Amino acid sequence: MKQKEKADIIIGNGVILTVNNNDEIINDGAVVIKKNKIIDLGKSSDIKNKYKTKKEIDAKNGVIMPGLINTHTHLAMSIFRGLADDLPLEKWLNEYIFPAEDKFVNEKFCYWGTKLSLAEMIFSGTTTFCDMYFFEKETGRAAEEAGVRGIIGEGIVSAFGDEDKIFNNKTRLTKDLLKEFKNSPLISIAIEPHSCYTCGKEILIKFKEFAKENNLLYIIHLAETKKEVDEIKNKFGMSPVEYLDKIGVLDEMTLAAHCVWLDDKDIEILKNRGVKVLHCPESNMKLASGVAPVYKLLKDNVVVSLGTDGSASNNDLDIFSEMDSAAKLAKVSTLDSTVVSAKETVRMATINGAKVLGMENEIGSLEIGKKADIIILDFNRPHLVPVYDYYSHLVYSVSGSDVETCIIDGKVVMENRKILTFNVEKTIKEVNKIASKISN
Amino acid sequence: MKQKEKADIIIGNGVILTVNNNDEIINDGAVVIKKNKIIDLGKSSDIKNKYKTKKEIDAKNGVIMPGLINTHTHLAMSIFRGLADDLPLEKWLNEYIFPAEDKFVNEKFCYWGTKLSLAEMIFSGTTTFCDMYFFEKETGRAAEEAGVRGIIGEGIVSAFGDEDKIFNNKTRLTKDLLKEFKNSPLISIAIEPHSCYTCGKEILIKFKEFAKENNLLYIIHLAETKKEVDEIKNKFGMSPVEYLDKIGVLDEMTLAAHCVWLDDKDIEILKNRGVKVLHCPESNMKLASGVAPVYKLLKDNVVVSLGTDGSASNNDLDIFSEMDSAAKLAKVSTLDSTVVSAKETVRMATINGAKVLGMENEIGSLEIGKKADIIILDFNRPHLVPVYDYYSHLVYSVSGSDVETCIIDGKVVMENRKILTFNVEKTIKEVNKIASKISN
Repeated sequence: MKQKEKADIIIGNGVILTVNNNDEIINDGAVVIKKNKIIDLGKSSDIKNKYKTKKEIDAKNGVIMPGLINTHTHLAMSIFRGLADDLPLEKWLNEYIFPAEDKFVNEKFCYWGTKLSLAEMIFSGTTTFCDMYFFEKETGRAAEEAGVRGIIGEGIVSAFGDEDKIFNNKTRLTKDLLKEFKNSPLISIAIEPHSCYTCGKEILIKFKEFAKENNLLYIIHLAETKKEVDEIKNKFGMSPVEYLDKIGVLDEMTLAAHCVWLDDKDIEILKNRGVKVLHCPESNMKLASGVAPVYKLLKDNVVVSLGTDGSASNNDLDIFSEMDSAAKLAKVSTLDSTVVSAKETVRMATINGAKVLGMENEIGSLEIGKKADIIILDFNRPHLVPVYDYYSHLVYSVSGSDVETCIIDGKVVMENRKILTFNVEKTIKEVNKIASKISN
Repeated sequence: MKQKEKADIIIGNGVILTVNNNDEIINDGAVVIKKNKIIDLGKSSDIKNKYKTKKEIDAKNGVIMPGLINTHTHLAMSIFRGLADDLPLEKWLNEYIFPAEDKFVNEKFCYWGTKLSLAEMIFSGTTTFCDMYFFEKETGRAAEEAGVRGIIGEGIVSAFGDEDKIFNNKTRLTKDLLKEFKNSPLISIAIEPHSCYTCGKEILIKFKEFAKENNLLYIIHLAETKKEVDEIKNKFGMSPVEYLDKIGVLDEMTLAAHCVWLDDKDIEILKNRGVKVLHCPESNMKLASGVAPVYKLLKDNVVVSLGTDGSASNNDLDIFSEMDSAAKLAKVSTLDSTVVSAKETVRMATINGAKVLGMENEIGSLEIGKKADIIILDFNRPHLVPVYDYYSHLVYSVSGSDVETCIIDGKVVMENRKILTFNVEKTIKEVNKIASKISN
């Protein structure tokens, strides 16, 4: 008899939604994990004959799929969740969020706010995030403790201060991050100027150079509101996309969040430059920013992924709910129910997210050799019965709370809805302490 | 010492969201239930001094609020959930749903399909539904067993058959329902012609007379798609609303589902006749039917409530998710983030639902003398922390799975997420048996 190979974890007895290039689905499947990687996957019976392990996870006929990728967050803002709603974006930002940030945002705020968001993301099946905010060393520290994969970057806003000073300060902070997380298996660093209406031309260009020198992603809010577009057109005689293109910061390493107000020329530029789009439908709906032309972008082969935005403008971090909204909003806004199918939407939340972050060889699908970022969903629930089409359920019927188990980089961070990597109760208490000061 | 009054259930230690006329919120509150009614509510400490009970429910600082009201469902269609998606409404109906209905829908289908939906509704905090489908005696029977409040009515479609025969048959079935559920504390009967494009003029009129004679609600799909409006305009030279008004079936006992394609004249008619609107945003989005002018309707004091529609076109029955979509869709479609506030949205899902069903003196808010239809939500969860505004969380952050306990007509139907009134596992099994025939 042939000896069985040792594995660290085997997830068995589930339907594997691989999200590979053939959208392969394996019924009664099993996934084999060794260290932080997927070393095999296939029919449960075959896997059992080939591998032995001490840690078996029974998927109970549920779905085994790649962890979700939330490509646009401001994690620490969870502490502002519900602080101000049903307001215009400008008023919301200028009268509520910016003053509250000035007063309350510090290291402690960012650490605990991020920790709270990490709990919420793990509970709803997100295994990788891409964050832009302040005191991002705290964000990275919290994510490492929680065992969640993430890209972090200092939010850069220069419009209200001394541009040179800000450039030097943010450069120093970014170098600090690069040093701090140099050997991290989970955390990478990006350059993140907030937008072309809050950053000067020089700083946008200088940070693009810095990004190129260090081979870093360059992430920016773009064409989020009509007001932004009008303002930039008034100032520079061109759209925000044309403006950023003209100053030379758009390329395949640039990620643009929102992209609501695009005309055909803008889409052409994004496509030609290889810019990736971070689509945040629920934030765009709630803040009444508008509807991003996702259908057109996808048709033009622009890579589009999903983001929740901060939970002060969504107000949650559930990518399953974001998928539902993305598919439905695309349909109702085009009056065409065939656009942005369930399958395309699942890809936006998984493999497209990986492509956007330049990590498509590491995460975003379940394939041999990829990192073990895996979630298991319980499908034995009334709202998920019967099943004719797994993609349909994942987009239109599943909610984050259907995720039972969550594995990141080969480590079980949640099992049977218990987070194993940190104390969620303590996190809630610490956040409530900070929030009680904001309420007063 | 004054003797304490006996109660059947006391829910204590929660934040009571009354949804009364003053939108009163009682912190550290308790609700007292005797038989099927709320006999008192107030501060926990006061209630403890006045009442004694054997059954105490600890809300654990969560929210105690009126059960949600889903005013437009086709419950048994849960068995078709995900059978066909991302299709145009007409194709979806004519090529998938109608043929599947012809082949598979019978008493057993409707009983088990409804039972599945009842489980889903209880799990997500819905305590009253308003259903239109076939074999509604089975719907009513299932709801009574589950202990859920509902309005049921035979769906009437006459366009494809002998109108007289259909009138006689549906009249007989309706009289049967009236007799069967005459003394039911939970089930009421309505008259439910499907629409003006699937029912002839005579049958619409004759059933309105029947409804008036028996003091029954008259429920109809109205102006759901542009195609419907174009068809009716072509045929009768007027809009569907004008047409129904002309034939005399619009009054304060008429409930119109969807109402997407309304012009100002239509809104004026609905307002003047006192017609109530059943708003189904997620179905309208997914089927790309369009966006109902909810903001205008509410401004004109038309009573608007929420519905999920069937779970083949949503694809779930979670009214919390429907609230989120209703508020966000109204904002993005008007490009005004101030319209359809969180508070207004909670009212649509509770007291407006009660008004629509003519039950505003019995359900829809937590007030002394009203029936005890109550849900308790766990707020000690990362996605609901911190709390600045309960309404905001209920609309933008809560999902159905945050409901811990559900009481209907004074009876605990779910406690700590265990349904106590029927066997959910058996229901899932029976539905899967039926579905396996549909898959083949």
